[in-house]
Amino acid sequence: MAKLPIKLAIIGGGSSYTPELVEGVLKRREQLPVSEIHFVDVEAGLEKLEIIAALTRRMIAKAGADITVTASLDRRAAIAGADFVMTQFRVGGLQARARDERIPLKYDVIGQETTGPGGFAKALRTIPVILDICKDIEELAPDAWMLNFTNPAGLVTEAVLKYTKVKAIGLCNVPVSMKMMIAAMMDCEPDELSLECAGLNHLVWAHRAWLNGKDVTAEVLQKVGDGAGYTMKNIAEEPWDPDFLNALGAIPCPYHRYFYQPDAMLAEEKATAQTEGTRAEQVMKTEQELFDLYRDETLAEKPAQLENRGGAYYSDASLNLVDAIYNDRKTVHVVNVRNNGTISALPDAAVIECSAVVGSWGAKPITVGSLSPAVLGLISQVKAYEQLTVEAAVHGNYNQGLMALANNPLVPDIHRAKAILDDILRENHDYLPQFHAG
Amino acid sequence: MAKLPIKLAIIGGGSSYTPELVEGVLKRREQLPVSEIHFVDVEAGLEKLEIIAALTRRMIAKAGADITVTASLDRRAAIAGADFVMTQFRVGGLQARARDERIPLKYDVIGQETTGPGGFAKALRTIPVILDICKDIEELAPDAWMLNFTNPAGLVTEAVLKYTKVKAIGLCNVPVSMKMMIAAMMDCEPDELSLECAGLNHLVWAHRAWLNGKDVTAEVLQKVGDGAGYTMKNIAEEPWDPDFLNALGAIPCPYHRYFYQPDAMLAEEKATAQTEGTRAEQVMKTEQELFDLYRDETLAEKPAQLENRGGAYYSDASLNLVDAIYNDRKTVHVVNVRNNGTISALPDAAVIECSAVVGSWGAKPITVGSLSPAVLGLISQVKAYEQLTVEAAVHGNYNQGLMALANNPLVPDIHRAKAILDDILRENHDYLPQFHAG
Amino acid sequence: MAKLPIKLAIIGGGSSYTPELVEGVLKRREQLPVSEIHFVDVEAGLEKLEIIAALTRRMIAKAGADITVTASLDRRAAIAGADFVMTQFRVGGLQARARDERIPLKYDVIGQETTGPGGFAKALRTIPVILDICKDIEELAPDAWMLNFTNPAGLVTEAVLKYTKVKAIGLCNVPVSMKMMIAAMMDCEPDELSLECAGLNHLVWAHRAWLNGKDVTAEVLQKVGDGAGYTMKNIAEEPWDPDFLNALGAIPCPYHRYFYQPDAMLAEEKATAQTEGTRAEQVMKTEQELFDLYRDETLAEKPAQLENRGGAYYSDASLNLVDAIYNDRKTVHVVNVRNNGTISALPDAAVIECSAVVGSWGAKPITVGSLSPAVLGLISQVKAYEQLTVEAAVHGNYNQGLMALANNPLVPDIHRAKAILDDILRENHDYLPQFHAG
Amino acid sequence: MAKLPIKLAIIGGGSSYTPELVEGVLKRREQLPVSEIHFVDVEAGLEKLEIIAALTRRMIAKAGADITVTASLDRRAAIAGADFVMTQFRVGGLQARARDERIPLKYDVIGQETTGPGGFAKALRTIPVILDICKDIEELAPDAWMLNFTNPAGLVTEAVLKYTKVKAIGLCNVPVSMKMMIAAMMDCEPDELSLECAGLNHLVWAHRAWLNGKDVTAEVLQKVGDGAGYTMKNIAEEPWDPDFLNALGAIPCPYHRYFYQPDAMLAEEKATAQTEGTRAEQVMKTEQELFDLYRDETLAEKPAQLENRGGAYYSDASLNLVDAIYNDRKTVHVVNVRNNGTISALPDAAVIECSAVVGSWGAKPITVGSLSPAVLGLISQVKAYEQLTVEAAVHGNYNQGLMALANNPLVPDIHRAKAILDDILRENHDYLPQFHAG
Repeated sequence: MAKLPIKLAIIGGGSSYTPELVEGVLKRREQLPVSEIHFVDVEAGLEKLEIIAALTRRMIAKAGADITVTASLDRRAAIAGADFVMTQFRVGGLQARARDERIPLKYDVIGQETTGPGGFAKALRTIPVILDICKDIEELAPDAWMLNFTNPAGLVTEAVLKYTKVKAIGLCNVPVSMKMMIAAMMDCEPDELSLECAGLNHLVWAHRAWLNGKDVTAEVLQKVGDGAGYTMKNIAEEPWDPDFLNALGAIPCPYHRYFYQPDAMLAEEKATAQTEGTRAEQVMKTEQELFDLYRDETLAEKPAQLENRGGAYYSDASLNLVDAIYNDRKTVHVVNVRNNGTISALPDAAVIECSAVVGSWGAKPITVGSLSPAVLGLISQVKAYEQLTVEAAVHGNYNQGLMALANNPLVPDIHRAKAILDDILRENHDYLPQFHAG
Repeated sequence: MAKLPIKLAIIGGGSSYTPELVEGVLKRREQLPVSEIHFVDVEAGLEKLEIIAALTRRMIAKAGADITVTASLDRRAAIAGADFVMTQFRVGGLQARARDERIPLKYDVIGQETTGPGGFAKALRTIPVILDICKDIEELAPDAWMLNFTNPAGLVTEAVLKYTKVKAIGLCNVPVSMKMMIAAMMDCEPDELSLECAGLNHLVWAHRAWLNGKDVTAEVLQKVGDGAGYTMKNIAEEPWDPDFLNALGAIPCPYHRYFYQPDAMLAEEKATAQTEGTRAEQVMKTEQELFDLYRDETLAEKPAQLENRGGAYYSDASLNLVDAIYNDRKTVHVVNVRNNGTISALPDAAVIECSAVVGSWGAKPITVGSLSPAVLGLISQVKAYEQLTVEAAVHGNYNQGLMALANNPLVPDIHRAKAILDDILRENHDYLPQFHAG
Repeated sequence: MAKLPIKLAIIGGGSSYTPELVEGVLKRREQLPVSEIHFVDVEAGLEKLEIIAALTRRMIAKAGADITVTASLDRRAAIAGADFVMTQFRVGGLQARARDERIPLKYDVIGQETTGPGGFAKALRTIPVILDICKDIEELAPDAWMLNFTNPAGLVTEAVLKYTKVKAIGLCNVPVSMKMMIAAMMDCEPDELSLECAGLNHLVWAHRAWLNGKDVTAEVLQKVGDGAGYTMKNIAEEPWDPDFLNALGAIPCPYHRYFYQPDAMLAEEKATAQTEGTRAEQVMKTEQELFDLYRDETLAEKPAQLENRGGAYYSDASLNLVDAIYNDRKTVHVVNVRNNGTISALPDAAVIECSAVVGSWGAKPITVGSLSPAVLGLISQVKAYEQLTVEAAVHGNYNQGLMALANNPLVPDIHRAKAILDDILRENHDYLPQFHAG
Repeated sequence: MAKLPIKLAIIGGGSSYTPELVEGVLKRREQLPVSEIHFVDVEAGLEKLEIIAALTRRMIAKAGADITVTASLDRRAAIAGADFVMTQFRVGGLQARARDERIPLKYDVIGQETTGPGGFAKALRTIPVILDICKDIEELAPDAWMLNFTNPAGLVTEAVLKYTKVKAIGLCNVPVSMKMMIAAMMDCEPDELSLECAGLNHLVWAHRAWLNGKDVTAEVLQKVGDGAGYTMKNIAEEPWDPDFLNALGAIPCPYHRYFYQPDAMLAEEKATAQTEGTRAEQVMKTEQELFDLYRDETLAEKPAQLENRGGAYYSDASLNLVDAIYNDRKTVHVVNVRNNGTISALPDAAVIECSAVVGSWGAKPITVGSLSPAVLGLISQVKAYEQLTVEAAVHGNYNQGLMALANNPLVPDIHRAKAILDDILRENHDYLPQFHAG
């Protein structure tokens, strides 16, 4: 790869997020000589794919860059010879997501895209597809790095690292958003701030925050408890109890609200589902509006409205990672990688989300060691759920699926777990061939 | 100790269970030469203590045994020179237990004596007292074995083993009851059946059941799923879902219903609390009736009514342990001991409940190694709760108390955790000096 | 198996030890209803096999027992339907052993049958053969227990448990000999003594010795240091330094002399090799004499001279294990089993030698947890050697063979390691097909 | 500390290496605003201390820098308010080192300053002194970073981190020298090369070498095996066997020769000791010559002859670390830190040498996880030796000292271990008060 021009393959290229990614590529032309971008998507997304490709070409032309853009349904052509394969697809589209959100609510259980039963359903649909993609990478681009954004990103990356030989790193915009929000609270530059992050995807804590060599964790916790803006576009801004934060002693991520404050989160979800619709149902409208904008042949840049979509820093997170690998930066990023002992109590083969040193050697996690019981119980419980989900998704195993949901802390009772599982299997029938084999 | 006559010190001797213990001593006269039993209790329990002592003397006389019985409020005298110290006391009595059961119900949370917030409250009251007892043992009977029955038995034993030098083993009648119930299902003698038990107190699974060298786990699970009698006097007999048991692949203990089926258990508790009263409130009546019987000077044996009290096999569990230690039997018992690596994912200093080889060397656990994620998540979560509870109880630390409840899987939301904690601290004020020190 | 008559398959039945095994079977007729013994051996051992079979039949007849004895070269027939398969064969015979002993001596390295390069060479020859045997067991007697005596017993058992599905337990007469010698020192019955044993085969320590509930470890160490008889027939009785034993704080096994006192052991070996010959060369004579005795058609019992051969308690160790499994005794034996976390610092898949509870559930090790650095360094070093040897033996891998010897603490320099490895590969050429494949 | 001027305290300031350190400080004036250097030494080193201070002042003047230089015997004054405390002292001076080298040779054991019994003796002398220094730091400069160069650096740092609250990082010039030598072999800039280093001090491997995103480990090993210059000034350049390196699969450090090739190393040491004298005896002459140069009042820079002394890159290693911490660089350095799970098989509290991310948060090790058995045996054995040595040194415990030497792989027999220990204790009597207390 060394200093040769870069080919990017974007699986799920028809995503409404793509223009941000393209903007990120153009911003980094000095350090990242991208020569080719190949967007690929499935038949059903063809129209969107073509809109995105056209907008991309206009953006490149406006920037005066020299990048070949291809858009096709031919995944193997996209992958062949790629240096980085970025996966951001959504099996079943927003319709499937809406179902993921609605099913649990029937049983008074959090209905959310990535955590709880919603994330479980998404994992069942996604994992068989990504393992297929990996077969292509193993054959056609064995040295490529896969950067996986597809949610639930930790779980999906664990399936890839357990069942394929692909060099994969899972990525999420939550840790970088945490850094931005905390820097804003502390009135400092993000780069002045160092966070010791470790946990699982959408269940990551900053165990310590450093500012200019000083441990400012307690100060940050106080600001969050005092009501400092600390959430993301797609999560209800439920305030945090200051006493709880003080007792916790670590900075939770915005998604922790689902685990620590399910009463309020569930009430909010149920109320919203009856009025504005679930998050997916809302996003469908936003998407429609975005693609209406993207179609405009005079548009040659990322429209401001994309910010409302919810994926803040998505482009920075992914392209900074490409930069760190390509240019061997050895900079610290928070990524999803094989645990390998980083968090002592979790299995070696578990994927965790943690601070890691990223360079041409990939992402090497920074040792965490023993975690406090204040966080270790939850992380162990959720990791057990994740392991069981990976096995259920790969092997189409009902029992492991049932145990997965029974172990998810958002599902309080095995009877509800079973009812939800049965609904998920029935309503996603066409996307779950692994459960119907043989 | 070797082959010398045995002195037993019974802390909380005024318990209504005591006659069963005495019966057990008398049944084992051949192998266990008990020469002295010293019952001790607190001032408030003096009347009961004397009733028990008188009944005990009548039972001994009837049996023609030669055992000195002392009943006093002098704990140090009881402990001095004891070979076995049995702890079965209840700080705050049944009134405190009734509060432990009622407080969580206000917040739609399981209200139970040993699991959930009820067990947490009991631990806060009990641990300071048992650490005091241990100081006496360290001074007055350093070679004695403490057999701890005081609930929550795992947690309390963990506090003893972390904070004192006393040789302690925690004991519970659940595992022996499981064995009896499974033997009944399988229509075999209990001794023909071997269970590989491991977990935590009141959260223990038989991971495998063997009958005559054959693994009969699946068969047992099917019988339990088909509705075989599988519960204990003090737990609602909520039926088990056969599919869930099959997926679990391990035999849960009756108390697992609180964790796996909280919906039904909570509904039952709430209903009962409004009609017959909570379990403690019911037991108060039973206790009254038992002590009325015990007072009868013609009674010289354990009355049959004691069976309704709920502590089946209590006497067998404890005296078989005394026998195994005293006579160096090297027999397998399920006890609460320091983990020391037995279950790989838990800390060395955690107390676990597992099969162990008991002899004059104490209780040596049988290796368990890596547990399946199907059980490991729950066990890790509950152990985190237990560790935090021990620290909260020993140091009177509010933050660790809050994190303990926030990590208890029966408490679904931190706001409820905090409300319950505040209620517990307020309603148990006089029993929690550690929270008011300094 | 339950209570049905027992078929024993003895692989390597032509061994001079076999009469002791037969005597053990006859002694245990009450509790072990053996109905069939099938001895099997290789072509080269046919004459010895027939001598043994004839003697066995005379012993059975004299005892009035009803046991069918078969002797054949048909391994599959021996294994088919066996309940216990006992492996006690020696690939290459005593000639190969003599080479194992002589090669290292050329380089001033301990030349011994089971430890050091001698044991390494034996493992290379043995492992391919035992894996073949295991294939037969998997096919023809999948429920049988393999009791493996073939040295190096730990290493060989590790290969079996890693690479086959056979239910195998490794066994050695060292731990039972230690118990007998220590009981003699302490002037007690062996059964009164409890040893907490853990380590590796021929590298096992009794970490604590208990007599009637008292920890007598220090007393035993003092007696060993004072010169109490503490060795086995085949090991030079080099005295132990009392200060060292006191510092060690655990009772070493007789074979530890090779690791702790190689100066004296090497000097003794070199001297003996020049006069009486190596141990193998001495044993050849003993064997000759034994078989001369066995041939005598009037002999119908184990001759007393067998005791000089060196395998004391061999029969007791193996048949007590058969008894424990068959009759579900749940008694404590020291065996070679999968670690599975028993000794925390070693890999789960490593085979260790430790106290275990043996019953119809097999051998369940008793937890050891963290070992003192005083023993952990050596055990880790030797286990690394063993792991590498298993891989070298299974895959015929030169590099792993070289690293195995380079990691063996008895081989002080990599140049000597390489020279010894090359000699071993050359001199055992015909027995090491795995190194010549493809 | 943030951006304030820096005070350095140099314990053992009279070392002949100091001018290199001063040169390093002057080279980094832009990024490291050192305002004060306080050299401290013991009475016996006063003359050297003053020579060094005078030379330092001339160097600073020549550079036109504004740095206050103090030289005193007042350790507390040096430490008070320091930002960095650098420890580079030598208890007993070169005379003691010469004894450390000579004693083992009497018993045909490697006599070397840092590994084997020589390093053990040095640790016994050094640890009580450094713990005293730490008491001063805890009191007078609790936020200071201690950078410890005093050998055996890993062992000594382990004692500091186990027994004090000082923020300490151990440092050695071996890893940076390895990087320089490998970069020379590969004909690349050191910065283009990434080494994944992990092990113990003077027992560290580069497990993988990366050049521009390519794994070049095998290529480096081939070059080392082909005879590429790969040693340091103070170690005999014994060539490496190419087959061994290939089998090892990791790049050893120059000091590994003592463990892998003791035959040749010992022969060389014995020969040299009889001719030129031991390394210490040679250094005494070099030192004399250096101080003769330093005395020259016209000298105002580090003389070229210092290079022969052996501490190449010593200044870069330490000042780059100061820079990384002070300027929060988050760059990767190889340092000695608390293991905390980095290498799974070693205890959390062990100090290891490994790649770490250094910034204002200190040094955070990069996860290593499970090491191959090819290196794990040796590392475990040496770590056991180190743990025992720390305990022996801190508590003056003979037994742990004996077990330490008995576990050192360079000491092949316990009788030699004991003889060497007794010699060391006798010949260092005045430096080992901890062995004579009470």
